[in-house]
Amino acid sequence: MKINYPDGRIFNSPSKPSSKVSTNTTAKKKLIFGDRGMTLEEEINESNKYYRSHEVAVIYKKPTPIQIVKVDYPKRSRAVIKEAYFRQASTTDYNGVYNGYYVDFEAKETKNKNTFPLKNFHQHQIDHLRMCQKQGGICFVIIKYVTLKRYFVMPADNLFHHWDAQNHEGAKSIQLQDIINCSIEIKANYDPTLPYIDAVQQLIESGKEK
Amino acid sequence: MKINYPDGRIFNSPSKPSSKVSTNTTAKKKLIFGDRGMTLEEEINESNKYYRSHEVAVIYKKPTPIQIVKVDYPKRSRAVIKEAYFRQASTTDYNGVYNGYYVDFEAKETKNKNTFPLKNFHQHQIDHLRMCQKQGGICFVIIKYVTLKRYFVMPADNLFHHWDAQNHEGAKSIQLQDIINCSIEIKANYDPTLPYIDAVQQLIESGKEK
Repeated sequence: MKINYPDGRIFNSPSKPSSKVSTNTTAKKKLIFGDRGMTLEEEINESNKYYRSHEVAVIYKKPTPIQIVKVDYPKRSRAVIKEAYFRQASTTDYNGVYNGYYVDFEAKETKNKNTFPLKNFHQHQIDHLRMCQKQGGICFVIIKYVTLKRYFVMPADNLFHHWDAQNHEGAKSIQLQDIINCSIEIKANYDPTLPYIDAVQQLIESGKEK
Repeated sequence: MKINYPDGRIFNSPSKPSSKVSTNTTAKKKLIFGDRGMTLEEEINESNKYYRSHEVAVIYKKPTPIQIVKVDYPKRSRAVIKEAYFRQASTTDYNGVYNGYYVDFEAKETKNKNTFPLKNFHQHQIDHLRMCQKQGGICFVIIKYVTLKRYFVMPADNLFHHWDAQNHEGAKSIQLQDIINCSIEIKANYDPTLPYIDAVQQLIESGKEK
């Protein structure tokens, strides 16, 4: 089920149950991999499950903030929320810990084949990433070009650069070539679905070199 | 105040929490402070706001996870959730970043004057804290004795110790004296309401000494 948020975000409820596949079925899964058609959110959630179960990292998507107005408490049954509204999040969607490092990121996908529109981001997400980076967190964005099937881990600094430029008559979007130049490309895989922690490790190492 | 850890570590908690209160309003604020009657959650949320605005730390309470079943999209009006249910959280309530460290904790209050019942915790919270600690996170619990107006930052290790003991015929609750012995006591204040980051700094320093 897809839910269209008032602010234009699209929320995918878990359409597919998370799969813990035994090795017997791996080959089959690999065959159909290209057709799984998961959203970026689903791919990251699956990867996070893999990273947790393998004790690589503990990273979760935050629940969507909801303003609850009315709740019913039926007898002998669990509480039912009868009226509630979506609220604007104050933070990014994902955070957690990897090998002693605080990790914070946002995930965005586009069907475009070249430009990535900056309107995909909100001011509060930029502000939050800036604050976390100041505190020593590893901050970035995962960008998925759905049509091209390409995935990029772009360090937050590069996002800030483009975000600030648009306020000074810079472009309102980022060109694919710019993203290629300033990001770490990751390839979709099976276990984990999206090995973005490899890119996080590279970001940490490149930060140490500075 | 000196704190004796069960494992033999000793450290000194700050005699006074760090406060940034303008001198003019201090007297008045202190007068009304005792009557504010905030819940522990409200006190922590206020403290987190203070820490963010003063660039000390970026820590948030996670939204309550909700399973959305039915949403209406009225014309010219925002989406209304018409049927939804509370879901069990997989994690603790609070996490974020402080000075390069990943911070993760749960907050619990009791009206008891002595024992703190372990049934206040859930297995998934213990599991999550253990996983975060393994990844190098700073993990703890903030315990509020509502009637006594006392607040403790108890390192997760001590919680694990008591939690595991109850499965081997240990007590189902923790005595106040045990909490005093193994925790850092913090005093409610005005700005921030609950200066728990002072205790986090001590936990980090005591970890380095090991």
